[in-house]
Parts: sequence; C-alpha cells; structure tokens
Amino acid sequence: MLTFRIVLVEPIYSGNVGSVARVMKNFGFEELVLLNPCELDRPAHLMAVHAYDIIENARIEFSLKDALKGSNIIVGMTGLPGKTDNKHFRIPAYSPKQLKEKLAGNSGVVSLVFGREDAGLRNEELEICDLIVNIPTSPIYPSMNLSHAVAIVLYELSDVESGVRYLAQHSDIELLYGHIDEVLDDIEYKEHKEDKTKLMLRRILGRCDLTGREVQTMRGILRRIQWKLKTGEYGKSD
Amino acid sequence: MLTFRIVLVEPIYSGNVGSVARVMKNFGFEELVLLNPCELDRPAHLMAVHAYDIIENARIEFSLKDALKGSNIIVGMTGLPGKTDNKHFRIPAYSPKQLKEKLAGNSGVVSLVFGREDAGLRNEELEICDLIVNIPTSPIYPSMNLSHAVAIVLYELSDVESGVRYLAQHSDIELLYGHIDEVLDDIEYKEHKEDKTKLMLRRILGRCDLTGREVQTMRGILRRIQWKLKTGEYGKSD
Repeated sequence: MLTFRIVLVEPIYSGNVGSVARVMKNFGFEELVLLNPCELDRPAHLMAVHAYDIIENARIEFSLKDALKGSNIIVGMTGLPGKTDNKHFRIPAYSPKQLKEKLAGNSGVVSLVFGREDAGLRNEELEICDLIVNIPTSPIYPSMNLSHAVAIVLYELSDVESGVRYLAQHSDIELLYGHIDEVLDDIEYKEHKEDKTKLMLRRILGRCDLTGREVQTMRGILRRIQWKLKTGEYGKSD
Repeated sequence: MLTFRIVLVEPIYSGNVGSVARVMKNFGFEELVLLNPCELDRPAHLMAVHAYDIIENARIEFSLKDALKGSNIIVGMTGLPGKTDNKHFRIPAYSPKQLKEKLAGNSGVVSLVFGREDAGLRNEELEICDLIVNIPTSPIYPSMNLSHAVAIVLYELSDVESGVRYLAQHSDIELLYGHIDEVLDDIEYKEHKEDKTKLMLRRILGRCDLTGREVQTMRGILRRIQWKLKTGEYGKSD
C-alpha cells in the first residue's frame, strides 16, 4: 500500500491550512503534519469547512526530521524548477503526472512536502528530498496559492495504484548517502567538486525508487570498497 | 486554436473570485466572465495577488445567455454526477482528463461554467451545457472549494493540444436542438417522454464535438423530414 503524508513547512496563513485540509478530505487523504505552523485560528476553521478533523488530528512538529520520520520517499514541491543540469537542487523536477507514474506499483509512506507561501522550501530542505516535483505553470505568473498546489498534486495521486514493491526506508537511504560520502572522502575525491557530486548522487538515487534490499546490496559494495582501500591490497599484487 | 473562457455563475465569496483569477494566470488563461457576482471587494484583491488584472478585465453579465455568447462548446461543472442513466442532466459526467482528451485536436471557444459555492449549477443551467464534467472525489466529502475545482480543471487543460477541426457555434447547435424539438412535435412524440428525450438528445449531440458542417447537414435532414411530413406524401405512393 502507498500511504501519503502531507507536510506543510511553516505555513503563514491559517486559511491556507484550512483549505489544504478540505482538499485532502475531498480526495481521501488523512495524514497532515504541520512544521512550525502559524496559529490555527478562525480562517483555518472557515476554510476547512467539514474537514476540520484533519487539522485536529494533524501532528505538529518543530524539526523537519521529526516531521518526516518513518517516510520511505520524500517528495519536495518547488515552484522553481532548476534551469540547468548544474543546479542539482531542483533537477530533475517531475510533473505531478510523472510523480504518479513513478510511484505506481510501489508500497510505502510517501511524504509530500510543501514549502512556505512566500519562500517555498529552502535549499537545505530540498536537499533532503528524494524527488522534486514542479507543477508546470505559466512563466508570466508561476507562483501558485499553496492550497491550489496541494489540490493538483492530490488530484493526480488520488487514484495512483499501489503495488507490492516495498520501498526502502528513507532513513536507510540516508545511511547509504552517508556511506557514499565516506567513500568519496576515502578516495580523496576533489574537494571543490564534492558537494555538487554528493547532491547529484542523491538526485540520481532518489529517483530510483530503491527497495530495502537494493540499499543493503549497495552498502555491501561500499563496505567492500572501504575494506579493500583500508587493507591497501589494491595494486599491491602487481 | 482552442480558447477557454471561465464563467463563474453567481459566486458568493469575493476571495474565491480572486483565487480563481490567480490560478487562471498561473496556467495562462485570461478570459473571465462573472455572472451576477458578489461585490468584488478586498478579499478578491488579496487572493488574486498578481492576477487582479484578470478581474479588472472580467466581463460582468446578468444572464447566462449573454455570458456564453460566442461559445462553441459549453462545459458545466458538477459536484454531483448523475447516479443513473435516467438522469440525463448530469450523465455522462466526464473527468477533467476525459474532457481534455475530447477537446484535443479541435478549434473553438470553450466555456467552462462553474456554479455557486453552495448550490452549484441549477438544472436549467446544466441543460444548456454540451458536456458535464465532474472531478472524482471522496464520497465522504465530495464538496470542493470553487477555486480548487477551477485549479484542477485548468491544470488538466493547460497543455491540451488544439487542432484544425472547427467546432460548430453553440448558437447553431441550439438552433439544431430547437429544430429537433419541432420535429418531435411534428411527429406527435409522446408528451410524457418528450422532455427526457429532448435532454437525452442534447447530451448525445453535446458530446459529439459537432462541426458547423455536420450541424448544417443534420438540419438539412430535419428540414427534409418536415417537408415530407407537411406535403403529406409519405405513404401516399403505396
């Protein structure tokens, strides 16, 4: 089964939180996590209409890590898709339709992370995400209302078909990323390229829908590389 | 070219009108028609953000007929798809995706008609529509915010491909419908069935994407039937 978690990062307008709750219920989604939200006052009630239970049951967190705990795939929304392949933060950006196609057939917890109304997600927040999604909009006025963006993503995902392919836990993928970073250090990878390359590798692996078994196999390879590097046997047999 | 007109029928909340303007601009749509709208006060400005020009350029009308003038296809949105084939008002209801597929390859003015926030479109308003569209939502809470419904429909239609198949003017289609009604009278069609049958024929022809030439050919056939009925020659040759 695919289950979805909607994560709003520091929403500013409580009316938007209410609107998001309403459209979640319209499309049958339930799990809302609010990271450092504004006060959930009257506009949240007014806009939620018959979906205020979603807000009452929302989990409120104060760190992104806590908000994302237990996720298998973390999807970050951006209104600014990367312009060049050199900007790995937002590249590649999938459309909501492509996201649906990627997720179909899988099983796991998918966190859909939406940024602040005015400033979106910060680079360090996007870095954590496995996939980046952008809604294709007009270049003349690309900035969408938060709840409209949620509406469109949930509309697409409302009939996605789950499968029995169990996605790796995001925390295991993080361990894999950490392990890759270690190996890059071990091989004395060029420092001025290192950060970009690490991010590029995250983006590549993030869009692979890795299963737990695949992550373990890759870590096995990395351990083997490290062992070989440490025992210093490489090249010695010459 | 396909061009789109967004028609809001008696919107109650000016904030919704502003939200609709914003999402129109997000997806590159321009023509807004407001039928008997609420006062377009501060919330309309606030929610439109950088799209208030759409509201300033909106045409305000006081009859649905005027609002729809010049349309080729009229699409009515409903939150309540028909439950049985016996209810021709809302049958068949297409999804936004199916609407896009139907429109692809055509050329003409498509009016997308959205009803009141509380009560939607009235039956007599749905009757005028060529096609009915429903966004598939959860049965637990199907009632969507007006601007969310607009957002989803425009998101789907934002990349529809136009073609060179020129759709008939809706006013010509209305003349065809009137002509069919005449013929049903001429043949003394059973009165208790007449209204349902007329509506069913509208629904059938409404989803055919008729071209102007096709409408004229059908009216030629109807004229020929009427002529034959009037001159009374039918059966006389026996």
